[in-house]
Amino acid sequence: MTGRMSEEMKPGSLSLRPLGTAAAPKPEVLCIFGTGDLGRSLGQRLLQSGYRVVYGSRRPHSCGPLPQGAQVMSHAAAAQSASMIFICVHREHYNFLETMAPNLEAKVLVDLSNNLRKNMYPDANAAYLQRLVPGADVVKGLNTLSAWALQNGLLSGKQVYLCGNSAEAKQAVAEMATKLGLTVLDRGSLSAASELEDFPLRLFPEWRLPLKVAVGLTAFFFFYLLIRDVIYAYVEKGNDISYRIMVSLANKVFPIVSLIMLSLCYLPGVIAAFVQLYRGTKYRRFPDWLDRWMLCRKQMGLLALGFAFLHAIYTFIIPIRYSVRHKLISRVVNEDNETTPFYFDNTEAWATDSFYVLGILGLFLYVLLGLTSLPSVGGSLSWREFSFIQSKLGHLTLTICTTHGYIYGWKKFLLPSTYKWYTPPGYMLCLIVPSVVLVLKVLLLLPCVDRTLTRIRQGWERSQPREEMGDSKATNL
Amino acid sequence: MTGRMSEEMKPGSLSLRPLGTAAAPKPEVLCIFGTGDLGRSLGQRLLQSGYRVVYGSRRPHSCGPLPQGAQVMSHAAAAQSASMIFICVHREHYNFLETMAPNLEAKVLVDLSNNLRKNMYPDANAAYLQRLVPGADVVKGLNTLSAWALQNGLLSGKQVYLCGNSAEAKQAVAEMATKLGLTVLDRGSLSAASELEDFPLRLFPEWRLPLKVAVGLTAFFFFYLLIRDVIYAYVEKGNDISYRIMVSLANKVFPIVSLIMLSLCYLPGVIAAFVQLYRGTKYRRFPDWLDRWMLCRKQMGLLALGFAFLHAIYTFIIPIRYSVRHKLISRVVNEDNETTPFYFDNTEAWATDSFYVLGILGLFLYVLLGLTSLPSVGGSLSWREFSFIQSKLGHLTLTICTTHGYIYGWKKFLLPSTYKWYTPPGYMLCLIVPSVVLVLKVLLLLPCVDRTLTRIRQGWERSQPREEMGDSKATNL
Amino acid sequence: MTGRMSEEMKPGSLSLRPLGTAAAPKPEVLCIFGTGDLGRSLGQRLLQSGYRVVYGSRRPHSCGPLPQGAQVMSHAAAAQSASMIFICVHREHYNFLETMAPNLEAKVLVDLSNNLRKNMYPDANAAYLQRLVPGADVVKGLNTLSAWALQNGLLSGKQVYLCGNSAEAKQAVAEMATKLGLTVLDRGSLSAASELEDFPLRLFPEWRLPLKVAVGLTAFFFFYLLIRDVIYAYVEKGNDISYRIMVSLANKVFPIVSLIMLSLCYLPGVIAAFVQLYRGTKYRRFPDWLDRWMLCRKQMGLLALGFAFLHAIYTFIIPIRYSVRHKLISRVVNEDNETTPFYFDNTEAWATDSFYVLGILGLFLYVLLGLTSLPSVGGSLSWREFSFIQSKLGHLTLTICTTHGYIYGWKKFLLPSTYKWYTPPGYMLCLIVPSVVLVLKVLLLLPCVDRTLTRIRQGWERSQPREEMGDSKATNL
Repeated sequence: MTGRMSEEMKPGSLSLRPLGTAAAPKPEVLCIFGTGDLGRSLGQRLLQSGYRVVYGSRRPHSCGPLPQGAQVMSHAAAAQSASMIFICVHREHYNFLETMAPNLEAKVLVDLSNNLRKNMYPDANAAYLQRLVPGADVVKGLNTLSAWALQNGLLSGKQVYLCGNSAEAKQAVAEMATKLGLTVLDRGSLSAASELEDFPLRLFPEWRLPLKVAVGLTAFFFFYLLIRDVIYAYVEKGNDISYRIMVSLANKVFPIVSLIMLSLCYLPGVIAAFVQLYRGTKYRRFPDWLDRWMLCRKQMGLLALGFAFLHAIYTFIIPIRYSVRHKLISRVVNEDNETTPFYFDNTEAWATDSFYVLGILGLFLYVLLGLTSLPSVGGSLSWREFSFIQSKLGHLTLTICTTHGYIYGWKKFLLPSTYKWYTPPGYMLCLIVPSVVLVLKVLLLLPCVDRTLTRIRQGWERSQPREEMGDSKATNL
Repeated sequence: MTGRMSEEMKPGSLSLRPLGTAAAPKPEVLCIFGTGDLGRSLGQRLLQSGYRVVYGSRRPHSCGPLPQGAQVMSHAAAAQSASMIFICVHREHYNFLETMAPNLEAKVLVDLSNNLRKNMYPDANAAYLQRLVPGADVVKGLNTLSAWALQNGLLSGKQVYLCGNSAEAKQAVAEMATKLGLTVLDRGSLSAASELEDFPLRLFPEWRLPLKVAVGLTAFFFFYLLIRDVIYAYVEKGNDISYRIMVSLANKVFPIVSLIMLSLCYLPGVIAAFVQLYRGTKYRRFPDWLDRWMLCRKQMGLLALGFAFLHAIYTFIIPIRYSVRHKLISRVVNEDNETTPFYFDNTEAWATDSFYVLGILGLFLYVLLGLTSLPSVGGSLSWREFSFIQSKLGHLTLTICTTHGYIYGWKKFLLPSTYKWYTPPGYMLCLIVPSVVLVLKVLLLLPCVDRTLTRIRQGWERSQPREEMGDSKATNL
Repeated sequence: MTGRMSEEMKPGSLSLRPLGTAAAPKPEVLCIFGTGDLGRSLGQRLLQSGYRVVYGSRRPHSCGPLPQGAQVMSHAAAAQSASMIFICVHREHYNFLETMAPNLEAKVLVDLSNNLRKNMYPDANAAYLQRLVPGADVVKGLNTLSAWALQNGLLSGKQVYLCGNSAEAKQAVAEMATKLGLTVLDRGSLSAASELEDFPLRLFPEWRLPLKVAVGLTAFFFFYLLIRDVIYAYVEKGNDISYRIMVSLANKVFPIVSLIMLSLCYLPGVIAAFVQLYRGTKYRRFPDWLDRWMLCRKQMGLLALGFAFLHAIYTFIIPIRYSVRHKLISRVVNEDNETTPFYFDNTEAWATDSFYVLGILGLFLYVLLGLTSLPSVGGSLSWREFSFIQSKLGHLTLTICTTHGYIYGWKKFLLPSTYKWYTPPGYMLCLIVPSVVLVLKVLLLLPCVDRTLTRIRQGWERSQPREEMGDSKATNL
């Protein structure tokens, strides 16, 4: 039916065909300008989807290997034969299109071009193209597809964006794209073209903020612990324990950053709940910073998982380290060749084992959370299942990891020797945020608070003056 | 073409347009009742897919922020302008729909509502809606979509369910949904609505049975080993080794449960084969318990992987444990400060290393099996590849892990001291099921048995009296 | 609209219906020959998508359980009622179709059959079917779907292939398949049928070459190290250290193979760049061996990750090994019960810790690369993000792992005792390929080389005689 739809647009096919006959719908002809990698891959893919493909080329007889079954013609002849033309040419070479504008009258021109970097040109390529060929319907889109993805059949279910000033032209392109297995999102008029042209140049925009936070925290705690552990030992006792930087220090920084990042995942949700409680409505937008924070929770969590993973592996290799083996042997035989027996302390055994077990369970839940954030796993969960895992299991993970931190310092925090140069140890600093999050969360779970919050989230509003309106809103899902 | 299809349904567009003209298909108008989160997200998504969207609201002038490009009207006016209306309103507020039933005559009403818990109401929301507005065509569906998924463009390839009494209404909704990138499954008439309304309330139904089995096994073996190891030592020898509960005991329970769960993955397949061999046909249904068991094999396997993962990490941290370091040092220097040399036993070195290597390889294959059960990985495999991994590699994993278990007890099982209080040790109990599965599997691989089974699975039937019918069935794939 | 489309093809529906009326499109009837597993699952899925389904059976009254809502008739009657017929019958039983050829005149026959192994028959099943029923339009396709996938709704976004001589017939099947959520690729005429019939029999074809390389390398290094380590010690010193084969030797072979495989991932890209630089154009095809090599880079990388994973776990269990504990204790107390103190070497501590840290970071990046190669993760990245990870992070991983290798041998490579029997140690051999890759890569990053390469990749050609053509090509994306 895509075939039929676009046949309607072909200037040649004006006859009124009765619907009920078994008349064969001829495959639609699509035209591609440009025989580069993208043009060739696109043509091959269109042929596989049952279209006929005609290439427009300056030198139709010497343009290199093209997909089997495609025809090559001059630009003008190719344009004549189809109602939709894909422009797979660099913007610098668009000027030839201006000279052949009469041939492109009323055609749909799909601009697939991308630039090498942002703001290379004052206007979008598609807007420039529309200026050159005012009589054509320019549609910007499909520019996120790579030649590689087209060749390897990686289109199924991929989202692509379209924009353009003609609704019909967009409709025709959307149907073609749907037939290739793509999902199409309309981004409005051609003024959105420069936004679309920036898409393929994006480099993890949603990871920027979490990465900055992670790098900042890592740097801070690294230098903090470097001063407290290594430099303190060197200055105060003259010991050179700089070798500890590589593993021991890193293995303190990683769990600290991981735990803080994890709690920063759950803090905005808690803040949002208090904001809603305070305002008594869910119908006012959160402040911008809170919105942005909530949008990068997944990335925060995955970074936290990365740090936890590193912490785990750093821990596993502890016993094969040279300095650890040295310490163990020195525990038995000191440098004066004297041996020392080792008296067993049951409480110590319990405490360290509990400490490890909580760490292991925390890591296990961390990995579980990470797995459900995989698109294909998360997509197969119902909404209730997803929120059960991300909220219930998430807070359980935070609780377990925080307890892991508390047990780490259970005996040490009262020793004066812990507070070198009057600074608290790193693990204490890192427990602040998670503890706050957990306390706030417990407050939110108190029956009376929970009840109010649930009502607010179902649409109820506290502000009695606007009663009618609140009533109206309470009816909506 | 979705556009055209539904234009047919629009009361306004009755003219017979010739097909061949380049007439522009106007974007179809869809109506949404309800301006809550879901209504707004749905409207935005529909706008992006090229529809026009009209909201129906009680107070069109004060209903908060709506997506750009959407119109807001009174309910009646909005209903007038479209042939399909999405009901994004809580069931408690449906009664206003009854009063405006005349405006909804012959419209398609899509009921997207969900309830907070099962069995809140005697009948399904959609059935209630149909009773209120008997002249409309109610379609239940899309209720598994969350506002969150709609906003974040997570619809591609997602499956949604529809049900309703009017085939045409369902067809229209299905085409709209297809255009959003969803895959639609028709679940029949409106009587299936309550089933559809239960979908978003599901909480891992297919994990229930495997989780129960896992919890049961874990509890049993935990108490069994607690009695044999800790309580026995305390009662018989007066030793308090309770600190072992946290790690040593858990690290015995986890591999035991993991191995049993893994063998329970493969047992039903073996039983099914014997049932087919006994019956001489594949055309009789398996008993219900076997069917249910076979349907949760994947979940059983993933739980087994989880326990194996925990076992691995518990093992990695063994050498940094306090009690292990104590034991090692006591091995060298006892409490009377006497030292003991350590004589090397080549056989012991071979045995323990083989034990570890089998464990590692088992874990590696376990992880491989787990990875291929990810939807996106499994989906990219051909059927033969999938069954190669899940069956061949699966049985290899079971064999390796079972051998790992046998080597663990290779020397101990003849020592009388192993049978504390006349009970066999845990690893022996856990080897029973896997050994049975492997023996039965070997029986099935005997050439004569395998040949018969293959013929049965290709449609052959042993029962000669029904020869003709068997013959007929043998023709089918 | 699929419904309407195919109605056009139904011989019965010849009336000209006006487009604009709200006339209800009746669900289309599809016919299935064969009531086996595949036939039943397909029928159920078609019913769910809103089709009516009629089964053709030799004995319509005794053909076992069929999906609810489907009808069963004789073959002839069933064929009469539909324009599209799915052939879910084994090829051996196709002959009955010849006898009913008149009933199948002008029908679309979809051949879903598969064979048990390659080259079972001289021609493809679909070609044979077309010979039997010359008047029908045979379409081969959907044969990659399994009954299991159909039953469990695993079709969304899956790619299926079609081939056939009639474009209309393929179009009709493609629309039906699209409605099931499948993405359709047209593979041309019926002569491609045997290729399609081989698809479900594929067993990891793209893994063959990488697996062969991995097995070859593993075998070579295993025997090489066996001779150097174990046999050398036995022959020259009379020590039986064969117990080291299981863990120590394997843990040398795995990282060696992993590093070589990783560098083999990046070598073809570097070679390709030099080929392009030498030729001065990107428009000539690479030699076949290079093409094939580049196509299996992902599999090479995943195998390298597998070996790295094994190496990591083998390393984690080092300290719990019997022989390691023996060595540690013997370090303290020798067999004559003499104790030895352990003097700390700061450089040694730094070196070993750096060695471990590089290994951990390498593993971390390895896992990251592996995760982004998951279809669902990779698919959600923009092209620039994907190439950032696979190229930048990939080369970083290679650099880190190579440095890990260099530090391993930092002090040893000058000792004469390293060159047992005049052979270099394994780690030296394994550093050759990665070092070459890294050096070549650095050469390519030199500004002058990089500039030329970038121009070539944007379409520029060095060969001035063909200037015009080069110019023409430079216009294409």
